Amino acid sequence: MKLFHHLLSLPTLFFFFFFFFCFLQETVSIGPLQLTHPFDPLTKQEITLIQTIVLNKYPTKTNHVKFHYVGLDDPEKATVLKWVSTGAATTRNAFVIAIINSQVHELTINLRSSRVLSDKIHSGNGFPTLTVDEQSDALQLPFKHGPFVESIKKRGLNLSEVVCSGFTVGWYGETQSNKRVLRIECFMKEETANIYVRPINGITILADLEQMKIIDYHDNAVEPVPKAENTEYRASHLKPPFGPRLHSFASYQPDGSGFTIKGHSVSWANWKFHIGYDVRAGVIISTASIYDPEVHKSRSVLYRGYISELFVPYQDPSEEWYYKTFFDAGEFGFGQSMVSLEPLHDCPPHAQFLDAYVVGRDGSPQLLQNAICVFEQYGGISWRHTETGIPHEDIREVRSDVTLIVRSVVTVGNYDNVLDWEFKTSGSIKPAISLSGMLEIKAVDITHNDEIKSDQHGTLVSEHSIGVYHDHYYIYHLDFDIDGVGNSFVKTDLKTVEVSEQSSKRKSYWTTSSEVVKSESDAKIKLGFSPSELAVVNPNKKTSTGNEVGYRLIPNAAAHPLLTEDDFPQTRGAFTNYNVWVTPYNRTEKWAGGLYVDQSRGDDTLAVWTKQNRGIENKDIVLWYVVGIHHVPCQEDFPIMPLLSTGFELRPTNFFERNPILKTLSPGIVKWPGCKTP
Amino acid sequence: MKLFHHLLSLPTLFFFFFFFFCFLQETVSIGPLQLTHPFDPLTKQEITLIQTIVLNKYPTKTNHVKFHYVGLDDPEKATVLKWVSTGAATTRNAFVIAIINSQVHELTINLRSSRVLSDKIHSGNGFPTLTVDEQSDALQLPFKHGPFVESIKKRGLNLSEVVCSGFTVGWYGETQSNKRVLRIECFMKEETANIYVRPINGITILADLEQMKIIDYHDNAVEPVPKAENTEYRASHLKPPFGPRLHSFASYQPDGSGFTIKGHSVSWANWKFHIGYDVRAGVIISTASIYDPEVHKSRSVLYRGYISELFVPYQDPSEEWYYKTFFDAGEFGFGQSMVSLEPLHDCPPHAQFLDAYVVGRDGSPQLLQNAICVFEQYGGISWRHTETGIPHEDIREVRSDVTLIVRSVVTVGNYDNVLDWEFKTSGSIKPAISLSGMLEIKAVDITHNDEIKSDQHGTLVSEHSIGVYHDHYYIYHLDFDIDGVGNSFVKTDLKTVEVSEQSSKRKSYWTTSSEVVKSESDAKIKLGFSPSELAVVNPNKKTSTGNEVGYRLIPNAAAHPLLTEDDFPQTRGAFTNYNVWVTPYNRTEKWAGGLYVDQSRGDDTLAVWTKQNRGIENKDIVLWYVVGIHHVPCQEDFPIMPLLSTGFELRPTNFFERNPILKTLSPGIVKWPGCKTP
Repeated sequence: MKLFHHLLSLPTLFFFFFFFFCFLQETVSIGPLQLTHPFDPLTKQEITLIQTIVLNKYPTKTNHVKFHYVGLDDPEKATVLKWVSTGAATTRNAFVIAIINSQVHELTINLRSSRVLSDKIHSGNGFPTLTVDEQSDALQLPFKHGPFVESIKKRGLNLSEVVCSGFTVGWYGETQSNKRVLRIECFMKEETANIYVRPINGITILADLEQMKIIDYHDNAVEPVPKAENTEYRASHLKPPFGPRLHSFASYQPDGSGFTIKGHSVSWANWKFHIGYDVRAGVIISTASIYDPEVHKSRSVLYRGYISELFVPYQDPSEEWYYKTFFDAGEFGFGQSMVSLEPLHDCPPHAQFLDAYVVGRDGSPQLLQNAICVFEQYGGISWRHTETGIPHEDIREVRSDVTLIVRSVVTVGNYDNVLDWEFKTSGSIKPAISLSGMLEIKAVDITHNDEIKSDQHGTLVSEHSIGVYHDHYYIYHLDFDIDGVGNSFVKTDLKTVEVSEQSSKRKSYWTTSSEVVKSESDAKIKLGFSPSELAVVNPNKKTSTGNEVGYRLIPNAAAHPLLTEDDFPQTRGAFTNYNVWVTPYNRTEKWAGGLYVDQSRGDDTLAVWTKQNRGIENKDIVLWYVVGIHHVPCQEDFPIMPLLSTGFELRPTNFFERNPILKTLSPGIVKWPGCKTP
Repeated sequence: MKLFHHLLSLPTLFFFFFFFFCFLQETVSIGPLQLTHPFDPLTKQEITLIQTIVLNKYPTKTNHVKFHYVGLDDPEKATVLKWVSTGAATTRNAFVIAIINSQVHELTINLRSSRVLSDKIHSGNGFPTLTVDEQSDALQLPFKHGPFVESIKKRGLNLSEVVCSGFTVGWYGETQSNKRVLRIECFMKEETANIYVRPINGITILADLEQMKIIDYHDNAVEPVPKAENTEYRASHLKPPFGPRLHSFASYQPDGSGFTIKGHSVSWANWKFHIGYDVRAGVIISTASIYDPEVHKSRSVLYRGYISELFVPYQDPSEEWYYKTFFDAGEFGFGQSMVSLEPLHDCPPHAQFLDAYVVGRDGSPQLLQNAICVFEQYGGISWRHTETGIPHEDIREVRSDVTLIVRSVVTVGNYDNVLDWEFKTSGSIKPAISLSGMLEIKAVDITHNDEIKSDQHGTLVSEHSIGVYHDHYYIYHLDFDIDGVGNSFVKTDLKTVEVSEQSSKRKSYWTTSSEVVKSESDAKIKLGFSPSELAVVNPNKKTSTGNEVGYRLIPNAAAHPLLTEDDFPQTRGAFTNYNVWVTPYNRTEKWAGGLYVDQSRGDDTLAVWTKQNRGIENKDIVLWYVVGIHHVPCQEDFPIMPLLSTGFELRPTNFFERNPILKTLSPGIVKWPGCKTP
């Protein structure tokens, strides 16, 4: 779970220049521009300004200052909506979490006046997101720690081939206030870049991040290090034959790409939205609205959408594994963990890229090139019908589909999360999550299932290698503004009706009964147990036939937590207790696992907020949706996992008077005779 | 639900010639070829031969002969597998269901010797699939029926603008043996091609299909016919402005397409499989095997996969709607209802097309041009990892994805079902279903929800138009042969384990317990209520670490029937009582709703077969999976519905020793500078 600085890779450089010279106008990365939207991410200049302001107040000569979070302090929603309608200026404040002389400070800074508006000290439970730099430093400690060097020698391993990785420790009921610590595990990079499948198990190392020293060390048992054979994944290090061979593909958009990006604001087809970036949340979709051909104007759909937290509890209770219950957004920073996308491979041709700025421990801006890509996807069907029912007429109408995809990749150590937001002209938004990367492997002295006598808490995916059971729970923050802020959450149950004798030849049928959910408690839903449709509607806006305009959540198969509710990790990840939650909008309720998640005690989660049981009817509401995956590893996941994908759909439901793309024509799609190999 | 002859549309003709001249080698439709696979569909010549043989035995001079089903009589599995391994010849028999002098005959015909092997008379419940021709004839009857002409006049409608549609009547407990009948409803085509949204309600017509006359007629009530306004969907009949505008797209595969089709056998990347066609089943995927780079050979995965039945029960118990509980495969023929695909719009550039032959009532072959398309889809990621954990190294490996999609469209009257089989180099098979087309509308004298006093059994999607509640239940027949025919069905439950005091800082974790399902009864599963993984494995083949090789079903959100189990339609559609079923392979158990579904009584369904509770351990087994959609219509579905998609994944799970595409390189993907506008 460790991160290093994001360097600009050679392939990226190559493509960068390739594009620069060939197709400047289209694919050169878009750097920080002037403010075009209240949610534009902090620019390089702004981050530098913030650094200056904080260090002016706390000069490093006399203070020890570390920046743990630097982001936009969300303007009040009313002012943002005013900006959307009138362009009226909003505030431009930054929110900073810094550890200054071992105290956690929360600073709010006005970027226009360069003044510190507030400077509070956080005294509650939990610690801020770890910095990349402090992890890097901590991971060097073992190499200067005698007993560790001994342990490596004892195992007959080459210290120069060892690389270490850091893991947050969670919270297991300790009552005294804890120190900021990091568990460290080490791996062999000998003969492979795939360190995660070559753990040096049996050693436990605990480092204090403030004192930056190892405070606990045990060498418990010598386990064999899994072999490197068949673990390498770099093409440059693999021997032929390669295959299967896939045929190459060239594409061309005669009219250029169908979308434009100004700053971070996107317009495409009937959609307008903003792509934000935050070091903790990663990509944030904001102020998404869609053009309604009936009323000749754009109507608001989604004020903000992003992944608020990712909870990954492993399922091995042993001393070396019990604590592995990670919160990738709150502990490691989803945006901080984003990686540069590879043009042509992570994103198809014609993708446009956005850069982002990560913030170093010292408060300095660090460029993350090609952090986000936006591209059009062809190949589907939008709607169709062949009519064979009208004599002497042959009717076939087919509209091929084009969708717009916003993609980023968050790589937290071993796992790569490919995160898509797909926009459809029909009005649907389809977020998708795909998992790749590596399993976390537990080294065991077992080469075959026949040798297994007790629960290994995972699958023997290769010799000496257990792929440990775990879950992935992503929780989306979906702040709908369906045609305005006054929205309600409506649950429509499908219910069997038994028919009374003689009234029909049928004995039964089903019908619907809709309930406007009044409060937070009633909005907590475990999906999959009874058929229902869930929608966010605007009770103040009705269609001509009297249906409330709305959007429906079409979920995928639901996953429910399997830990007991009173277990410590589950208390911290209590936002997974239900698949769906609805809360009244609150500018400060952004992080379902809490603002301070490292060693949090579950006292600032969505589950706690909703105990207030606030009213949610005809209010500005936020829908929270949990996408869960129980992961029982298999051998195909080893040594690197082919994408495993899931997703869901937010679909307009009586939002439009009728199919909004009835009058959309298929794009020209031709096999291009003008294409010549150079 | 009526069908007409499939005519070759002008657009298709245009594209056909366009391709013919431009890209002969790649996109000209592939007609019937010499036998290349035992499951090759019946050729035009074979269908003509069958017609001749049957009519020789039953000369039309003295017999009334109608062909209701003409298809391949599946060869014994053993002989097919022998053909796969050695090329040894198999039998080539046809199975025919014909109504001869009002008796249902089942004939088996040897196509090599041109001999009738057997000729049995079916005396049980239910009738064969309706022919397209008899429906066409029946739908002309009202126009010669005085009372109907009166009813139309009474409503002030123009008879020349009326078009009728036919509906199967189902079974509601009648004990006497029924006649073959068809309910007829009529619609206005005036000012729109969208007849389904302009029903002339209040009239019930029943036609006898054998006597071909109306045997029951009632004009119950005059309901207003919904207006044509906003119902037209033909671009040629819509007024500007059109939009949103989508940018055009050109593509080119420098090395040609990555797959080859010989006859109906496809090879692509690491996959080999066969695309069959049957007038009842539609597309059938057979003998799918994938190349294993470890053992340097192809290994079998799926012997046969197809949609066995589609059950669509509507949820209005009234006299005019109660009977609408359709079985689109068994009553109307899924293959018979396939429509010609539109090049470039139903399928992207570089798609290759396969034709099919439908069989007329008279036994004659009728060409269905471009019935199936096969194409490669680009734009995804196959696997990736960015490694930031190794100091001084910058590692990023991304493999972009190419998948192969086999597509067909089944249009049963109002609904268009877009049916995809997607093959991935990772070994996954992802079947997908997308719904488009029109809703079935009930005309009501209501223009606004405020006027609704009683349950209308649907949504008021437009003035006077109720989109009636209904379900879509597709059941897939998935005959896995995982590395051979001896397979088992394994259910792996995920279970919470509470930790005893002190043994761990955790209070709980989850682990798995696998059960080899012994018999049909234990294999009946309602999905969604408890976490489990379902796999078909080969217990006789283990990986080097001792895992049984297998494939896993990754389902989507499950839908469960809402009709009472004893209701007549549910008895006939009892295969929906569970989402998953497993049966031992039986050559004759092909149709989950029975062989004779029209007016069936549920005595030949999957639910009945499995009452034998046969053993399924280490046997040749078939997995049946139900994909269900409860459809609560919304205004966006009107007048034509944007695609609503669902699907599932069949994913290798310990089938391979490791990721089988570790050594696959990304295809060349470039924005082609060689492309010039002509």
